[in-house]
Amino acid sequence: MDDHVYKIIELASSSSESVEDAIRKGVGRASETLENLRWFEVKEMRGHIEGGEVAHFQVVLRIGFTLNEG
Amino acid sequence: MDDHVYKIIELASSSSESVEDAIRKGVGRASETLENLRWFEVKEMRGHIEGGEVAHFQVVLRIGFTLNEG
Amino acid sequence: MDDHVYKIIELASSSSESVEDAIRKGVGRASETLENLRWFEVKEMRGHIEGGEVAHFQVVLRIGFTLNEG
Amino acid sequence: MDDHVYKIIELASSSSESVEDAIRKGVGRASETLENLRWFEVKEMRGHIEGGEVAHFQVVLRIGFTLNEG
Amino acid sequence: MDDHVYKIIELASSSSESVEDAIRKGVGRASETLENLRWFEVKEMRGHIEGGEVAHFQVVLRIGFTLNEG
Amino acid sequence: MDDHVYKIIELASSSSESVEDAIRKGVGRASETLENLRWFEVKEMRGHIEGGEVAHFQVVLRIGFTLNEG
Amino acid sequence: MDDHVYKIIELASSSSESVEDAIRKGVGRASETLENLRWFEVKEMRGHIEGGEVAHFQVVLRIGFTLNEG
Amino acid sequence: MDDHVYKIIELASSSSESVEDAIRKGVGRASETLENLRWFEVKEMRGHIEGGEVAHFQVVLRIGFTLNEG
Amino acid sequence: MDDHVYKIIELASSSSESVEDAIRKGVGRASETLENLRWFEVKEMRGHIEGGEVAHFQVVLRIGFTLNEG
Amino acid sequence: MDDHVYKIIELASSSSESVEDAIRKGVGRASETLENLRWFEVKEMRGHIEGGEVAHFQVVLRIGFTLNEG
Amino acid sequence: MDDHVYKIIELASSSSESVEDAIRKGVGRASETLENLRWFEVKEMRGHIEGGEVAHFQVVLRIGFTLNEG
Amino acid sequence: MDDHVYKIIELASSSSESVEDAIRKGVGRASETLENLRWFEVKEMRGHIEGGEVAHFQVVLRIGFTLNEG
Repeated sequence: MDDHVYKIIELASSSSESVEDAIRKGVGRASETLENLRWFEVKEMRGHIEGGEVAHFQVVLRIGFTLNEG
Repeated sequence: MDDHVYKIIELASSSSESVEDAIRKGVGRASETLENLRWFEVKEMRGHIEGGEVAHFQVVLRIGFTLNEG
Repeated sequence: MDDHVYKIIELASSSSESVEDAIRKGVGRASETLENLRWFEVKEMRGHIEGGEVAHFQVVLRIGFTLNEG
Repeated sequence: MDDHVYKIIELASSSSESVEDAIRKGVGRASETLENLRWFEVKEMRGHIEGGEVAHFQVVLRIGFTLNEG
Repeated sequence: MDDHVYKIIELASSSSESVEDAIRKGVGRASETLENLRWFEVKEMRGHIEGGEVAHFQVVLRIGFTLNEG
Repeated sequence: MDDHVYKIIELASSSSESVEDAIRKGVGRASETLENLRWFEVKEMRGHIEGGEVAHFQVVLRIGFTLNEG
Repeated sequence: MDDHVYKIIELASSSSESVEDAIRKGVGRASETLENLRWFEVKEMRGHIEGGEVAHFQVVLRIGFTLNEG
Repeated sequence: MDDHVYKIIELASSSSESVEDAIRKGVGRASETLENLRWFEVKEMRGHIEGGEVAHFQVVLRIGFTLNEG
Repeated sequence: MDDHVYKIIELASSSSESVEDAIRKGVGRASETLENLRWFEVKEMRGHIEGGEVAHFQVVLRIGFTLNEG
Repeated sequence: MDDHVYKIIELASSSSESVEDAIRKGVGRASETLENLRWFEVKEMRGHIEGGEVAHFQVVLRIGFTLNEG
Repeated sequence: MDDHVYKIIELASSSSESVEDAIRKGVGRASETLENLRWFEVKEMRGHIEGGEVAHFQVVLRIGFTLNEG
Repeated sequence: MDDHVYKIIELASSSSESVEDAIRKGVGRASETLENLRWFEVKEMRGHIEGGEVAHFQVVLRIGFTLNEG
């Protein structure tokens, strides 16, 4: 949020346990290939239902990371 | 999300414990009268406060279910 | 939601544990200086990432409280 | 707005007199077939024009009613 | 809403009495120079305050009229 | 759009051919169980991809029908 | 709307009679503790239903007032 | 999209055949009275239903045209 | 913003120098053919890139002007 | 929409023939460099006008593809 | 954006010179009575026209400041 | 905006001087690694405050560039 330039990407990730776990999975997956992740924003929250029960919580995330370091 | 026709209904449900529990209650209540529930989307997240503390987490859900099976 | 007049304020609060905890912190902080808090609404959900992991979940809350009691 | 599950339906109703009358007509029509109506929200406000004058005020309403009583 | 082509214009009009009166004034003013007005939509509702009281209710209207008659 | 009360429902339907065909399927399915359908609105347009090609076009529709006839 | 700085607050107020009366109550309540109120904007319009009839019309208002006078 | 000033107008047009045909009708009608049309944007997509079938596809278009040529 | 009726038009204008200059060009162009311009609102801000550099800043403006003088 | 993590990219593509063709071109172009494309969403629909006629239909697409396979 | 609780207020400020100057005036006015201002967000950009020329650029700002220091 | 396919990316960039400078920095940074940049759109405008004064203006940009050249 300072003088850097950030790139913002969008991911969807899911978890059978919780919204927080779905967020952590998406951030964890992004950090495998990208360095300097700084923040995320939950754009949508949804999920799947199987047999009348919640099967997955899914989040659509915007994730920002720095392109240049000062 | 394939060749079926889905009907989408809207429910509001709540829980004193967590957002996930509020979602599960709403989905569970819908599954008492509807079959073939497929997905949900959290449209709003809010809640009530009593005595200066969160009393309930409430979600407004859109829930989709298939009208026809192929 | 009845004949009272409500004032609505906006807070951002965060927690390293969960979305619910972030909401409870914001509501708890508001209740230190305001009485008669009635409801909240989650307007945005976001957070910070450090070392490739979620550091904080942050919520932007609208909180309503009664200005007059009947 | 407490521990109940609400179903939310959408209606459009109109009145040649006023916005309030259009809302009351929509709520009145819903109450003919549904019990336990609790709240409404005006989503759109529009109307028709005939002979250069307003013929009807029309509202699109979301109406919530309880599915279960505690 | 049938096979015609409609042009849609935007007006803001106001009234010290009511929202309905503000709408009627806007529609009336449009009908002085345009024929075949068909519908309106209230896009914003606002107003002015003077001496701690509502001075005017103001509406921003989209108004549709037919360009061709079948 | 006159003095009737309309109920508005939401459907998602799809077609491998076109957006128009997806709309027609949704409307056709609704007309099997509902009379007096009057209008629709396309709220979302999306689809599925298989083998690098569009498999289905999917639309989310709001469909309005009259509850009472004058 | 000129060279002043305005502060904008948010209130929810209601009336069993009309939307205009709900707006006037909210503006009136704000003017008890704030001077120099200038304008309002209706952000949401909703209400409560009791016994199948509209009990209150409720508006969520943004109200602007000048912080400095030139 | 360069140094010109564009005026943007809004039209609604419809076709019993397709969305594209509805767009072409609206653009064609605008070009009868306006020169230098440059682009359009589909703001809403809706339509009418008669006898349980789609009668018209209707689009609400924003159309831009140049006011001055360089 | 008082008892007048305003018409609102939409323009897009651009400048190679600044956002303010793009706004001033759009307002200046409108004032060549319209009297009594009162306010503008910036609805979108965008621009063109040539050779890896910003070529123009472009704004989409809504401009209001009075139709009647009291 | 299950336990995978999806990346979502945004493309704009166009066709002189139809909206569906513009979507297919965008999806086809994406599939040249990306595997495992799963879904798309049409975010905007617009186009260009030349000589008073529609020259291109253009869509802005969000396209999701799986990053990991289970 | 860390473990603090932020309060968010809304101001409208204006300048005859530039958007940036209008932002700086609003922030400067807020800092006269509030400490620990951290960030702002431009929610709307508009202005007034006099004599066919831009008289003021006006911004509506959301400004966040910390309520507690760690 | 013609027959090409565009990819759209999202960047956040900032400047202590002006909104235009923040835009130029973001576009300049993108042009270091991408060719054929065509347009940008300002999606959000915000900034940081230090010592009661604006420290940076920050913009969130969507930037489009051609994937194929005709």
